[in-house]
Amino acid sequence: MESPGPAAPPAPVEFERSPEIYKHWRLSFDGPVATLSMDVQEEGGLSSDYRLKLNSYDLGVDIELADAIQRLRFEHPEIHTIVITSLKERVFCAGANIFMLRGSTHAWKVNFCKFTNETRLAIEDASAHSGLRFVAALNGICAGGGYELALACDEILLVDDGNSAVSLPETPLLGVLPGTGGLTRVVDKRKVRRDLADVFSTVAEGVKGRRAVEWRLVDAVHPTSQFRAKVAARANELAATSDRPAAGPGIRLTPLAPTVTDSSLSYSTVRVDVDRQARVATLTVSGPEGPQPSTPDEILREGDRYWPLRAFRELDDALLRLRFNESTIGTIVVKSRGEPAGVLAVDATLLAHQQHWLVREIVHFVKRTLKRMDLTSRSFFALIEPGSCFAGTLFELALASDRSYMLDDPERPNVIALSGMNAGPLTMSNGLTRLQTRFLATPELVSELLEEKEPFDPAAALDAGLVSFAPDELDWDDEVRLAIEARAALSPDALTGMEANLRFPGPETMETKIFGRLTAWQNWIFIRPNAVGEKGALTSYGSESRPEFDFGRT
Amino acid sequence: MESPGPAAPPAPVEFERSPEIYKHWRLSFDGPVATLSMDVQEEGGLSSDYRLKLNSYDLGVDIELADAIQRLRFEHPEIHTIVITSLKERVFCAGANIFMLRGSTHAWKVNFCKFTNETRLAIEDASAHSGLRFVAALNGICAGGGYELALACDEILLVDDGNSAVSLPETPLLGVLPGTGGLTRVVDKRKVRRDLADVFSTVAEGVKGRRAVEWRLVDAVHPTSQFRAKVAARANELAATSDRPAAGPGIRLTPLAPTVTDSSLSYSTVRVDVDRQARVATLTVSGPEGPQPSTPDEILREGDRYWPLRAFRELDDALLRLRFNESTIGTIVVKSRGEPAGVLAVDATLLAHQQHWLVREIVHFVKRTLKRMDLTSRSFFALIEPGSCFAGTLFELALASDRSYMLDDPERPNVIALSGMNAGPLTMSNGLTRLQTRFLATPELVSELLEEKEPFDPAAALDAGLVSFAPDELDWDDEVRLAIEARAALSPDALTGMEANLRFPGPETMETKIFGRLTAWQNWIFIRPNAVGEKGALTSYGSESRPEFDFGRT
Repeated sequence: MESPGPAAPPAPVEFERSPEIYKHWRLSFDGPVATLSMDVQEEGGLSSDYRLKLNSYDLGVDIELADAIQRLRFEHPEIHTIVITSLKERVFCAGANIFMLRGSTHAWKVNFCKFTNETRLAIEDASAHSGLRFVAALNGICAGGGYELALACDEILLVDDGNSAVSLPETPLLGVLPGTGGLTRVVDKRKVRRDLADVFSTVAEGVKGRRAVEWRLVDAVHPTSQFRAKVAARANELAATSDRPAAGPGIRLTPLAPTVTDSSLSYSTVRVDVDRQARVATLTVSGPEGPQPSTPDEILREGDRYWPLRAFRELDDALLRLRFNESTIGTIVVKSRGEPAGVLAVDATLLAHQQHWLVREIVHFVKRTLKRMDLTSRSFFALIEPGSCFAGTLFELALASDRSYMLDDPERPNVIALSGMNAGPLTMSNGLTRLQTRFLATPELVSELLEEKEPFDPAAALDAGLVSFAPDELDWDDEVRLAIEARAALSPDALTGMEANLRFPGPETMETKIFGRLTAWQNWIFIRPNAVGEKGALTSYGSESRPEFDFGRT
Repeated sequence: MESPGPAAPPAPVEFERSPEIYKHWRLSFDGPVATLSMDVQEEGGLSSDYRLKLNSYDLGVDIELADAIQRLRFEHPEIHTIVITSLKERVFCAGANIFMLRGSTHAWKVNFCKFTNETRLAIEDASAHSGLRFVAALNGICAGGGYELALACDEILLVDDGNSAVSLPETPLLGVLPGTGGLTRVVDKRKVRRDLADVFSTVAEGVKGRRAVEWRLVDAVHPTSQFRAKVAARANELAATSDRPAAGPGIRLTPLAPTVTDSSLSYSTVRVDVDRQARVATLTVSGPEGPQPSTPDEILREGDRYWPLRAFRELDDALLRLRFNESTIGTIVVKSRGEPAGVLAVDATLLAHQQHWLVREIVHFVKRTLKRMDLTSRSFFALIEPGSCFAGTLFELALASDRSYMLDDPERPNVIALSGMNAGPLTMSNGLTRLQTRFLATPELVSELLEEKEPFDPAAALDAGLVSFAPDELDWDDEVRLAIEARAALSPDALTGMEANLRFPGPETMETKIFGRLTAWQNWIFIRPNAVGEKGALTSYGSESRPEFDFGRT
């Protein structure tokens, strides 16, 4: 029932990388400026079914990019500007590899685009919140996903060599949309006039030189002879505007090294148990144990062992593995174990030192991981049981879930609690906190609840609207089991669409537009015969035959 | 290449109706309250392939509803509240007819949902801008599209008879989404908590009684014995809040009576010529001729012959016919003929008397028709030639187009002009004017251009960014022809998605969310095998066989 294609996606995919083993990127440093240079190895794709020519990319290339951005934030606080460029002569990047896309299942295409979108948004997050500036130094042709990467940067500089152009050739050449936010960023971020955007997006050869500047597609063009110097000068100018520290050290992000079995993933604080028969996974996050750092210096010494960073790095990795490697797991049961007070103490430390660069990085990373959860097309049911620690930051897991069930057993105390971490730092893609999103109808309730210093027992939590249901010990097993079984029986496509609509009430932002409007249309087009049918444009690309369209408009 | 189904949609569809020939609705009046009662005739569908049981509906039922709302606005200014209810015992409405959906092509499903969405939004527009209040009086079960109709009303009253519930059973029963804004309105308009919305949208039997009120799904429940009286009382209370006139008369909306040939549609001021070989239609709107009314009294006497009302009613009808009856026409060339000064004079009259109820209705109708154009999934290219009258209100047609070409021939004067109608009254779905949307990058330019009292010649228009291109007389024919030919060769699906993303930069509203996020997901689901495949849920519904899903999540 998936689109045709010879290659099953390579599985299982792993998401950890480090600069020593990058295949496709080179990282170099010069004072406050890091340069991240794309140098894709043609034979280095995740699958041997395609060759990554002309700096075209597959998921593996983007995993390295995401890793590099992440490490620069944590490991190199002294870096203030990141220049993204290419080591290939006259080629910046040709975009996502078309033969990879063509050979992929529908689900792979969709998840690939989701991940690359998240990577681009992480770049913009680093610019907005972490004082990092990004310069796209387009030293050659820049097409499709290559231009979408440039669009995620603060500034785009294009070489003016009479040949190098920026382009979004997806519609004219492939019959699909630019899948990584391109259309949205062209009109919403760079505010290109919609009629010019229309022309640009239908002209395969793209736009170059002065016209590219006039149309707002790039910020400046420079002749080849001056290009490197102009890029370096601009990168240093931008670096001076950063509020990052003048010097390091940063902290090292060490390997997560989960224990992987056929039915489980086990990290230091996160565990996933998979029941493929039931199509259900159980995701358990453990709270902090023992004494925790309480000053920035102590946090720096603790490094990536510090609980919130550790737990959310593990959660992030687990979510990505579930997305790509366990497509039939439709429902994820979310649990936690530990002391609510322990989580609240960590929250207090994070809140007290939010201005410190490392604490800031940790909080924004927690935020991005929770967004990754919001955007994961699986149903999440939080089960709040005695012994759990859904407090503060970890209560966001329950708020991010589609529903929550809290056991109300008078014999076994069970509480949830809020903290300042629920009041602002962990915004969703829609720009609101999860509490604000939850209580859109009664915004005054949000501040009332946040003022409550005592934890909520099941009756209080239900009454406050903080949990969906609070069955007693007699009903709990049946009610929870039936809810999970009923969910697992529904159409996975309808659930994906339903969740994508119910999870993001309230305002839309460029981010939600990309994942809502643009992604949804792209998914539609990705499954239409005009793209992926026997004579579709994506299928025909690079072959002798020209695409044949059913010209009926929808 | 379309979804299977025995029934080709009945074509050509016509969109004009009047109360004397309604099959499915009864309209009655009681002081300031009109009651619109659904009484769908089982055998009265547009096709005989299905029976419209239990007040389920097809496009024909919704065309009558749209007509009724429209006529109440123009023909009955003395009406202040509209009660929407049903004449069927214990049934309000079972939603869109499933057998109709199942037998329809993908394009029909999508266009059906788009039209019903536009009808619901016209209800909300009448409430927001025209002083009309809407009460959904749910006298029985109210499922799917029935509940979505209720959601479009200002208030929802549900009978409390122990049985009648509101429900969105699409996901659990059919493996699709509620297609008419339901999910968006539940969480965004009624601000139902997202976890409760999740439960509600997955429970086929829905929610009734007190819980329906507590969850904000309805505003009140009343026992059967009191229901009629409570509805009447509430309708009269709401009527008292209206700013509509206390008494009529309104104006009559008479038949448009176009002349239809195999390749043309010809109205009094609008003409469509279809070239199916080239997949292009030419849409020409003529400006006002002769003396025009300049006071509300004169406009009342002119009635529906008044040019702006006449022209935009004809344009609305033409757009709908193109959508449903000419699916292979991918590009629509937009032209105008007449005196710019004539359009500007009409604009001045409309602006001077905006407070008068009829002028208000006309302006909002023009606004809605232009939105219908924005939402039509065809490429629009405006050609601005000597003898055209793209001024003020009619310049919105050029602004709504994906591109505009203006002939720059020194021998033949050719101008465009702006008016106050470009400055506010004709907002797009995103809440901005088309000028604001166009100049998102340079908002200060909008007021500068609006202050310009002189018309713009081609060079000035190009320089101001009001047109895309201004070829001279030597280049015009080739440039325009090549642009149209190139457009017609592209994938219609990619163009639909591209246009849906480029046409709505800037803020999102509930309206754009419905057409962007929700519709796009629905379209995706409507073509997925889990819904429309041989064993999909929509295909299996009502038969012996249960759906079989590919449980892979995307």
